Amino acid sequence: MNTAMLPINKDRIWLRLTQLAEIGRFGETGVDRQALTDGDLAAKRWLINWAQARKYDVSLDAIGNVFVRRQGLDPRALPVAVGSHLDTEPTGGRFDGAYGIVAGMELLDALEEQTTATRRPIELVVWTNEEGCRFQPGCMGSKTHADPRLLGSMLTARDADGLSVAEALQGHDNALEAIPRRSLGLPFAAFLEAHIEQGPVLEREGRAVAAVKGVQGRRVYSIDIEGKTGHAGTVPYALRHDALEKTVTFLHHLYTRAAGDDEIRITPGRLIIEPNSPSVIPGRVRLTIDIRHPDASTLKDIPAWLASLVASISPDISICEVDATGPAVFDTTLTEVTRLACLSLSGLDRPLVSGASHDSHALAEFCPTTMVFVRCRGGISHHEDEFASPEDLAAGASALSACLLHATGTASSGTSG
Amino acid sequence: MNTAMLPINKDRIWLRLTQLAEIGRFGETGVDRQALTDGDLAAKRWLINWAQARKYDVSLDAIGNVFVRRQGLDPRALPVAVGSHLDTEPTGGRFDGAYGIVAGMELLDALEEQTTATRRPIELVVWTNEEGCRFQPGCMGSKTHADPRLLGSMLTARDADGLSVAEALQGHDNALEAIPRRSLGLPFAAFLEAHIEQGPVLEREGRAVAAVKGVQGRRVYSIDIEGKTGHAGTVPYALRHDALEKTVTFLHHLYTRAAGDDEIRITPGRLIIEPNSPSVIPGRVRLTIDIRHPDASTLKDIPAWLASLVASISPDISICEVDATGPAVFDTTLTEVTRLACLSLSGLDRPLVSGASHDSHALAEFCPTTMVFVRCRGGISHHEDEFASPEDLAAGASALSACLLHATGTASSGTSG
Repeated sequence: MNTAMLPINKDRIWLRLTQLAEIGRFGETGVDRQALTDGDLAAKRWLINWAQARKYDVSLDAIGNVFVRRQGLDPRALPVAVGSHLDTEPTGGRFDGAYGIVAGMELLDALEEQTTATRRPIELVVWTNEEGCRFQPGCMGSKTHADPRLLGSMLTARDADGLSVAEALQGHDNALEAIPRRSLGLPFAAFLEAHIEQGPVLEREGRAVAAVKGVQGRRVYSIDIEGKTGHAGTVPYALRHDALEKTVTFLHHLYTRAAGDDEIRITPGRLIIEPNSPSVIPGRVRLTIDIRHPDASTLKDIPAWLASLVASISPDISICEVDATGPAVFDTTLTEVTRLACLSLSGLDRPLVSGASHDSHALAEFCPTTMVFVRCRGGISHHEDEFASPEDLAAGASALSACLLHATGTASSGTSG
Repeated sequence: MNTAMLPINKDRIWLRLTQLAEIGRFGETGVDRQALTDGDLAAKRWLINWAQARKYDVSLDAIGNVFVRRQGLDPRALPVAVGSHLDTEPTGGRFDGAYGIVAGMELLDALEEQTTATRRPIELVVWTNEEGCRFQPGCMGSKTHADPRLLGSMLTARDADGLSVAEALQGHDNALEAIPRRSLGLPFAAFLEAHIEQGPVLEREGRAVAAVKGVQGRRVYSIDIEGKTGHAGTVPYALRHDALEKTVTFLHHLYTRAAGDDEIRITPGRLIIEPNSPSVIPGRVRLTIDIRHPDASTLKDIPAWLASLVASISPDISICEVDATGPAVFDTTLTEVTRLACLSLSGLDRPLVSGASHDSHALAEFCPTTMVFVRCRGGISHHEDEFASPEDLAAGASALSACLLHATGTASSGTSG
């Protein structure tokens, strides 16, 4: 297994991230650049200007994904795609998404500087609307690429003002009318993505980078717990039907399970009690439970486990599954190349499982896929305090370059297509 | 001990409650007659008209309490007061407060019909603003009667529109300018109050009425539990600082104590989590805990118990006491007279402790005080579904009459003054 890497220009990565963060900036380091807004368009234009200056081919598909192509030696070989997204949450920071694009730009520049030709073409891709905050679902561009049949439903999604994706895309299309169109879903030999971890593991372990072997699956539940309101002073304990007490019993069991399984993530993130008055016994509690796990069979058992738990506590708890997404398993060869590269770069020896969703999740069944994670401060993301150091970001690009060289068949040819 | 009672006219009580419920009525049986509103004034006028038709002396004090006096045989004896309040919660029903006034009216009418003279005068009192929903604190009139030094601060309390009690009272005073004024805090030989239970005990026991031996004390806490927000997918259990998990541990201990003590009431009535987003680990929880107990020494130990409980769970829990009201202990002789009367009226053999606060709580240290509770359906109050049957309400007035006859010295002279 080869861990050849490209020489990475740390300062150039940082400079580009700084330039990109000006587009949609708020405060010192906040970025609000939601999908298909003027800011999102300006960021795409910024990338296109860079690509056209280098005479790369740029194309645009029907869901607004942008592709920058560097040709390879074999004109019939499938391209290796590298990329991420340029949209952010309304309260976003400088690195989530943007880093994956800038890392791809850096790899192309490094190849040019090395005058290295690759067997396969390389496509740097900007996926539309990964965040899913303005239009749902998230990973809209990558999901539509992986399954073009989704296009119709994606185009009808509407934002809070009632504007549809189709309408928002029209503005984009007009602004980018000089850019050639391409079909949805053209095949890739592989897809590679660099991203900040958005979690605390690398910081805790004191490592700059890690390979990623997959993305957790997720089940989300809406729970409704009924009780009976009553006067805080007059109703004895034995006659109470306190919805919050049943909730505490239920959550106690969930936390016990969370504490006993290193891989499961259980989050009761939203909880609302009624009537929420200091002197009234809670009559109703509504909450959401987000459960994630990398293992498909464990996730499959969750509904039965929850049903039996609820049945053991009270008939007044009703439960509704509102989301069920299976885990993604990344390509083992690409992940191993990345892991070895990370090891030599102050990286973690074991691959991580991504807790957050990414475009790579949507593409994992479409083509061999893997990711590189970079340490970020405090695990913070979707926030102006989001931060990763120039050194760590450079290390991530180096690890990504090892995987790219492997996949494009420059160093050794591991992936066919 | 004598349990002589007055003959009670069940239909007259019901008719008067029905008339009173028209003042401020909403829907079929709801009443919105908040303190010092036009509805409250109209209800007082309705009572004053009744009193003046019977040539009773009516007077008004500086906090708007209304006194209707039936003279006794001994012009120098202190009066026995009977009463309650005419204000309601905005979502109130027909019985809370109103029943105590109508029961007093019934007792005076019964005395007239029996042409019974009492040694002591009797004063039927309407206390201003018992509910405390428009102006805080509640029991404003009875507290000011028991301690006239409170008048200044009471007059400056303001409602949500910024109107002060002094300003609201001015309208009342103008409308009732023909009514003679009296000093605040004139002494009573005793105070007696009939009220619906507002709890489920009498209904569960299948009894119409009960004596009341006191009112629980209450401590209210505002609790702030700090955690750290984080991504629901990325942060492993071992690295989480989930504010809701600490809350669950804390509440679990509170519920365990509540389950082990028949007399304590522990209610976490308000709970707010932040940021309250399905995919974000709760970073902060704020809640209120209302703890009540009839025993002063138990209540005294609550702060130390809570402090040590919190210390055993997390340094991130801060606790602030926002209310501490001692329990009231009612006069044992008056309570025993009431208990014996209740026993003969399908009453509970043991006196209850009131879980809710009442004007009697404010007066218990001012003069010998007791209460009679009447069964109400489902323990419901502060709601248009509040209901007590005509038969039970008549039984409550009968029990109250036994206590009145005892205290006024008609039947036997138990209280001096």
